[in-house]
Amino acid sequence: MKIFVAELIGTFTLVLFGCGAAVLAGEFVGQLGIALAFGLSIVAMAYGIGPISGCHINPAVSFGAFVAGRLGMKDMFLYWAAQFAGALAAAGALYLIASGKPGYDIAINGLGQNGYDAGSPGGYSLAAGFLFEVVATFLFLVVILGSTAKNAPAGFAGLSIGLTLAMIHIAGIQVTGVSVNPARSFGPAVFVGGEALTQLWLFIVAPLIGAGLAGFLATLNLTVSED
Amino acid sequence: MKIFVAELIGTFTLVLFGCGAAVLAGEFVGQLGIALAFGLSIVAMAYGIGPISGCHINPAVSFGAFVAGRLGMKDMFLYWAAQFAGALAAAGALYLIASGKPGYDIAINGLGQNGYDAGSPGGYSLAAGFLFEVVATFLFLVVILGSTAKNAPAGFAGLSIGLTLAMIHIAGIQVTGVSVNPARSFGPAVFVGGEALTQLWLFIVAPLIGAGLAGFLATLNLTVSED
Amino acid sequence: MKIFVAELIGTFTLVLFGCGAAVLAGEFVGQLGIALAFGLSIVAMAYGIGPISGCHINPAVSFGAFVAGRLGMKDMFLYWAAQFAGALAAAGALYLIASGKPGYDIAINGLGQNGYDAGSPGGYSLAAGFLFEVVATFLFLVVILGSTAKNAPAGFAGLSIGLTLAMIHIAGIQVTGVSVNPARSFGPAVFVGGEALTQLWLFIVAPLIGAGLAGFLATLNLTVSED
Amino acid sequence: MKIFVAELIGTFTLVLFGCGAAVLAGEFVGQLGIALAFGLSIVAMAYGIGPISGCHINPAVSFGAFVAGRLGMKDMFLYWAAQFAGALAAAGALYLIASGKPGYDIAINGLGQNGYDAGSPGGYSLAAGFLFEVVATFLFLVVILGSTAKNAPAGFAGLSIGLTLAMIHIAGIQVTGVSVNPARSFGPAVFVGGEALTQLWLFIVAPLIGAGLAGFLATLNLTVSED
Repeated sequence: MKIFVAELIGTFTLVLFGCGAAVLAGEFVGQLGIALAFGLSIVAMAYGIGPISGCHINPAVSFGAFVAGRLGMKDMFLYWAAQFAGALAAAGALYLIASGKPGYDIAINGLGQNGYDAGSPGGYSLAAGFLFEVVATFLFLVVILGSTAKNAPAGFAGLSIGLTLAMIHIAGIQVTGVSVNPARSFGPAVFVGGEALTQLWLFIVAPLIGAGLAGFLATLNLTVSED
Repeated sequence: MKIFVAELIGTFTLVLFGCGAAVLAGEFVGQLGIALAFGLSIVAMAYGIGPISGCHINPAVSFGAFVAGRLGMKDMFLYWAAQFAGALAAAGALYLIASGKPGYDIAINGLGQNGYDAGSPGGYSLAAGFLFEVVATFLFLVVILGSTAKNAPAGFAGLSIGLTLAMIHIAGIQVTGVSVNPARSFGPAVFVGGEALTQLWLFIVAPLIGAGLAGFLATLNLTVSED
Repeated sequence: MKIFVAELIGTFTLVLFGCGAAVLAGEFVGQLGIALAFGLSIVAMAYGIGPISGCHINPAVSFGAFVAGRLGMKDMFLYWAAQFAGALAAAGALYLIASGKPGYDIAINGLGQNGYDAGSPGGYSLAAGFLFEVVATFLFLVVILGSTAKNAPAGFAGLSIGLTLAMIHIAGIQVTGVSVNPARSFGPAVFVGGEALTQLWLFIVAPLIGAGLAGFLATLNLTVSED
Repeated sequence: MKIFVAELIGTFTLVLFGCGAAVLAGEFVGQLGIALAFGLSIVAMAYGIGPISGCHINPAVSFGAFVAGRLGMKDMFLYWAAQFAGALAAAGALYLIASGKPGYDIAINGLGQNGYDAGSPGGYSLAAGFLFEVVATFLFLVVILGSTAKNAPAGFAGLSIGLTLAMIHIAGIQVTGVSVNPARSFGPAVFVGGEALTQLWLFIVAPLIGAGLAGFLATLNLTVSED
């Protein structure tokens, strides 16, 4: 129960402030501001709820941890439920806040959804988006598995993982809006509907492939492994 | 006395450099710059005066700590007095510095005050502003209570709390200018007067509700608690 | 000798990359970029040369440490000599690099010098500049003396001091270009001459007053003191 | 083998996200965004693969470590092979992703290559570029050798080195695009060809000189040395 609440609050924060930076403030803080909002939401929650659940707040991270042998399958489903619930609640809260601005229209302004082709901020193709999401999630998990290993210096995981997510967004917002997190894509897509929903599969499949690969590499002891 | 001086200096720094970034440099550093100035003022003071008072520098934080059972009521009032005094002094110092620029007019350029409706940078409604301030302060306190718990990794609280405040500002400056801190709203409002003063209630009530909720959740042991 | 080399290299880095960001890249990275370059130069050198000299790289910091009873007077003069030498060398190196761009003219583009009135980026008055420099240096020293106290968490001083300097620059570049460091103002002023040189006194006097006040407060045990 | 994989993944990340920020997002995140992407790639990998290889991900860093007596020559060649391979693979992956945007043309948009004279973003001369690269790499290595010394506070090296690289980029992108890393220049140059390839020598020679000097200074015990 405590883990469920923690992952729900954590994913809520990621989506509310990450997507919120794009929707409420994108014009004023730019893509660098959006990138930092996403990254700093990880820093915030790693120290806020990390001691309870490890702060996955991302189904792909829980899947990678499962493949790497650090999380049981039943626990993974609990994490997933909390993450999708938190992302959905955050998208709802963001929609409420955004609607408080006269002239806001979700069909025009969106809710920070991800996409490819016409749904990509820079018009990038499905193939480019898929490749980017797989590679970025893979590298994201390499950092996560490495910085949370038992012999890693205590306390630095939250900072390094959050700053890694910021880095990924700096380069990648133009490509797909950056997911590397199925729950983060799910919440806004439910409210925006249309293309955001029909393209959602990519932001579930590609991050899971990337995370699974990183988890698998860790079991081969080719990257940092738990022990 | 030492605690009073520390909290006064700390809140002074938050308001002088946070609101100062908006008033003196907003046009040049953008909302991302303002967000970072607010966040880094917490980082600065967490290490500068944190060892003395814990660096609350925010009446809502002291209230959340009180509800969570980490601060006595009498101490809370001492913290509040220092925080409001520091914010007022900082608003005065900022007004003096800003007035050193030919053409500065507080009625036009403001002093970094918070607001809703016509007082909101993006024209957001009272309801949107209230919701944002409650939710943001709640999550801010979750991070503060979590990262300052006894078993948290030593030294990281200042960084994580400061970067969380930066994240909140990145998404929220358009909505209310971001308070999550009654003292930070009070200082500029006294000098600006008018709407800033009549809307001040929201930036006292909403942060206290959000912080109280987080403190209450901690006593339920649903989030990170002290022991 | 080792301390002299360390402080020289450190101040060289601060001036080359801080003023360099303004001169070589100001148009492209904005005042937020310049602020971060100054701040990160402290982070860099705190870990690069800090173990040798404590990374003062600022005559006002050495003076504050002297007033607080943490540095002998003879050592202070050694630190000062290295700091002014490093700043001068950096201004020279920056001039050489800047001159590699066709059309660069030091009389027009400057070398990152500080100033007030006509010399202030935003046209701020002498009084506003003086007040800002005293207050900012005072608060800067509060952070430095607090975060380097014996019981402070190990390793965080460099980050917190550097991020504090970034915060000061975000709000203050428009006011004076931000000195809080007589050596940082001295180097460019020697090459730029004219107004930069006649206004240099303020950027020696005001930082020393602010730093001295903070050092004095520490001896009163009103802020964090050494033991 | 594990070291080879680690250095390959690390250099891949640096080039993909650093050069990727420039190519995919430069117009939107600005030079400050690009600078942070390069810097944060070091932070990411220092915690992700650092425990395996020390996260050099830069032939000049391995050379400096060799000169300082911290790395054997045979190991240095292994590091170099992995670094050049990783940079080449990243340039290829970036080309694939960039090509997913209709209208991308490597001859016009480049791939984040370095250069001087006509190849310099700001039109800086060969001499200015050479001086900048030598000095910047020298100071970069001073930070690396200092922050990874045996008595340095554990865990801070990744943050301080990464933020130093960000600082170097903030000031220097206009001058050469910033290399301080022969592998980072090599990858894009192979794909872009022409001037990027004929100017590549500078971005091999200058960083090696700067790094060698810093390694040599460490052996003189003038800066932080290993023991």
